[in-house]
Amino acid sequence: MTDFTPLLERLRAIAGSAHVLTTGDLSAWELDWRKRERGRALAVVRPGSTAEVAAVVQACAAAGVSMVPQGGNTGMVVGSTPDASGTQVVLSLTRMQAIRAIDGANLTVTVEAGCVLQTLQEACEAAGYLFPLSLAAEGSCTIGGNLGTNAGGTQVVRYGNTRELCLGLEVVSAQGEVWNGLSGLRKDNTGYDLRHLFIGSEGTLGVITAATMKLYPLPACTLTAFAAVPSLEAAVQLLGLAHQHLSAGLTGFEVMGRFALGLVAKHFPQQRIPFFNAATPGPYCVVLEVSDNDSQEHARSQLEKLLEAALAATTASSAQPAASLAQARALWHIRESIPLAQAQEGLNIKHDISIAVSRIPAFVAETDAALEAAFPGVRLVNYGHLGDGNLHYNVQAPAGADAEVFLKTQEKPINTVVYAAVDRYQGSISAEHGIGSLKRDKLEEHKSPVALGMMRAIKQGLDPHNLMNPGRMLARPTGD
Amino acid sequence: MTDFTPLLERLRAIAGSAHVLTTGDLSAWELDWRKRERGRALAVVRPGSTAEVAAVVQACAAAGVSMVPQGGNTGMVVGSTPDASGTQVVLSLTRMQAIRAIDGANLTVTVEAGCVLQTLQEACEAAGYLFPLSLAAEGSCTIGGNLGTNAGGTQVVRYGNTRELCLGLEVVSAQGEVWNGLSGLRKDNTGYDLRHLFIGSEGTLGVITAATMKLYPLPACTLTAFAAVPSLEAAVQLLGLAHQHLSAGLTGFEVMGRFALGLVAKHFPQQRIPFFNAATPGPYCVVLEVSDNDSQEHARSQLEKLLEAALAATTASSAQPAASLAQARALWHIRESIPLAQAQEGLNIKHDISIAVSRIPAFVAETDAALEAAFPGVRLVNYGHLGDGNLHYNVQAPAGADAEVFLKTQEKPINTVVYAAVDRYQGSISAEHGIGSLKRDKLEEHKSPVALGMMRAIKQGLDPHNLMNPGRMLARPTGD
Repeated sequence: MTDFTPLLERLRAIAGSAHVLTTGDLSAWELDWRKRERGRALAVVRPGSTAEVAAVVQACAAAGVSMVPQGGNTGMVVGSTPDASGTQVVLSLTRMQAIRAIDGANLTVTVEAGCVLQTLQEACEAAGYLFPLSLAAEGSCTIGGNLGTNAGGTQVVRYGNTRELCLGLEVVSAQGEVWNGLSGLRKDNTGYDLRHLFIGSEGTLGVITAATMKLYPLPACTLTAFAAVPSLEAAVQLLGLAHQHLSAGLTGFEVMGRFALGLVAKHFPQQRIPFFNAATPGPYCVVLEVSDNDSQEHARSQLEKLLEAALAATTASSAQPAASLAQARALWHIRESIPLAQAQEGLNIKHDISIAVSRIPAFVAETDAALEAAFPGVRLVNYGHLGDGNLHYNVQAPAGADAEVFLKTQEKPINTVVYAAVDRYQGSISAEHGIGSLKRDKLEEHKSPVALGMMRAIKQGLDPHNLMNPGRMLARPTGD
Repeated sequence: MTDFTPLLERLRAIAGSAHVLTTGDLSAWELDWRKRERGRALAVVRPGSTAEVAAVVQACAAAGVSMVPQGGNTGMVVGSTPDASGTQVVLSLTRMQAIRAIDGANLTVTVEAGCVLQTLQEACEAAGYLFPLSLAAEGSCTIGGNLGTNAGGTQVVRYGNTRELCLGLEVVSAQGEVWNGLSGLRKDNTGYDLRHLFIGSEGTLGVITAATMKLYPLPACTLTAFAAVPSLEAAVQLLGLAHQHLSAGLTGFEVMGRFALGLVAKHFPQQRIPFFNAATPGPYCVVLEVSDNDSQEHARSQLEKLLEAALAATTASSAQPAASLAQARALWHIRESIPLAQAQEGLNIKHDISIAVSRIPAFVAETDAALEAAFPGVRLVNYGHLGDGNLHYNVQAPAGADAEVFLKTQEKPINTVVYAAVDRYQGSISAEHGIGSLKRDKLEEHKSPVALGMMRAIKQGLDPHNLMNPGRMLARPTGD
């Protein structure tokens, strides 16, 4: 058995004994966010600077010990916790949380990887700027984790994913070298775009230690509206109308299926869902958001013109703008309550898929029918970021069925049906959550072999000893 | 000497004899756009489909013959013409020009690499959508070349570079395999972002054969304004005001130095430059553009509010909106005439640099002074895309000096001064033109060795036999 004592001593010398954890309850680092897997770490190391991260990586690499970079440990696909071997070092970035600089004239912020997303949002707003990345875990997740997984969220229709918000990175390579790419430039054509290679690489190529991110002017006004639509086709048409009327003013467009809303009504009866009990309710509802750089009057006029056009074209059967900020929050809260309502209803099978917006109605009709035929009584909780073509297309056990048994016996065959349909529609089996270890085998099945070959060549080139988050995203070269 | 006859026969069998050119005047493919270098090709091959591209790459790879992918051959850095050896195959994509699909609901267009940019713009506009990439060579350059070099242009402040407009690629790998990544998805977290790796790789990793690009709603109205500013600092402040007032409505922001405008006035005296002869002219002028999704009235009101605020804050000394479309075109024409006026004035030393917007005034003050001290009488033609931090910071010989002699003797020392300042300001020595062979040695001097090491590892992994555009961007592994 390997003697890890010299390595642990070296790590303590680098980061300080208080920041090398080997005993006690390490659940915060070893157990994944959805509590699906518990690993065991050789140590949790919490370096306090880029230089310390580099030294830690060098020490681990010299000892042949693999590393698992970790931010807020809020990932959905078991990508940032150690395996069960007890031989991996968790490299936690949470002590590196400085906001190094806000450059107003350049509209950029430079921030260390461990900064919590909400802290970053608030600091930028306090300085008079918008940092638009926003997602459910924002109170716990870190910007480094957002970058490592290319997180999405609710503002992607306007501002893009984390990737699109990043101008530059500071990275510690698998060899423990520091690459300072924190330029904050909007144009830089000097070689391969290493930034985009590290973003979304889930810690398998190196460690992101800091980033320069884009800022935006704070909008003068943000308004929300809620609409019932007669079909998913109509929701797509409404999205097209919204793009046309609002252009970049459209900052949110979420769709919610009737059954998903029903779960919210059932489990959170204090919430008022507009149009939900109307005589002719649509099978889907939409919540949409407009941000305006001009004024509240202009925002309201724009939104009203859109809703009038939508009602006139019958792409919406009912629609109303929120009358107040409180009402706007309540409308968004309906959307945000769906995952919780679903959890209250019981275990379910989750899919985080994307399809070209134009093809979503046909995809859903076909896949709903296939699932209902193959798994009678199954209940479909369909909702998501329609503006980005991203659906959380989840499957709940039939009413009265034992959800645990259902999950155990039906998850695989249901996944097979859903992912086969995703393939036929040239969609993605992971729109915003990534691969981690949970979807690693699915990646092998569904990704183009040519693309997988290129990914392996890149991994081999940048991390030849397979020490950075091995076995995540890509199978180990040995075939694990 | 190698006998290339079997390869040429194979290429003729793949693409048809009419599309394998070996004799006659091949200048269109062998001479670079700026006429700096003439290479000699073994053959120019013009495949008509992705399958033919793949077969050509396989044939060349089997013969150990290297390939130079080429679009419209309008590059600025000698990156798409063959070397002088007569042993390279130019792989011209210009026959692959189909627009495969415009998907309005998904706001995407799928297009083959050889489609001319202007053709693509026009087809999208005819379908009711905006494809916003716009640059001087748009009548000749191809979208494949735009992707290979990550072209910039005049709309980057709003829509980003070519990179930011691309959702998916079809690529033929260095091994001649086809990767179909034409998904048109706005969210797809299934592995490393190969798309961004190929974009801007200048044909050194494989051949882009098609792409799915983003479309935008056509704006209801576009207005242009011209302003004189008392300093470069004031221009940066005006940019900040414009971001604040217009947000995503700001679709262009160009700065022009007084000497650059003077060259336009001298060589194109029929052009009227606003404020140029006024009593208190600013040392810089700005042309800016607002696009509005609402109406002409709203656009005009927004623009007037901005200009009033700028005059009140004395960030502009004079400002006027264009009164008509013809006047708007005339204002943009002033900006577009600077390179031509410069050419009329004589040979000059060009720099395509970027600096964080906030640091541009200090950079220019420092570098202007350094150049004026070291090269007395030197004339600085400073203009560019201030909204993106991208300056064309060019140097003209002193009045009356022999420009050719000046270029020959002073280009190197002047580059040294300029690029050293770019380094101090953490800028880029190639903002939008790329590296090619012209700046290859500069890349070695100015890019981080860690980043260069990663680039070499990626090149080695994806093109281990160095057959894709060898010696461009990166030196040959042997040290050429």
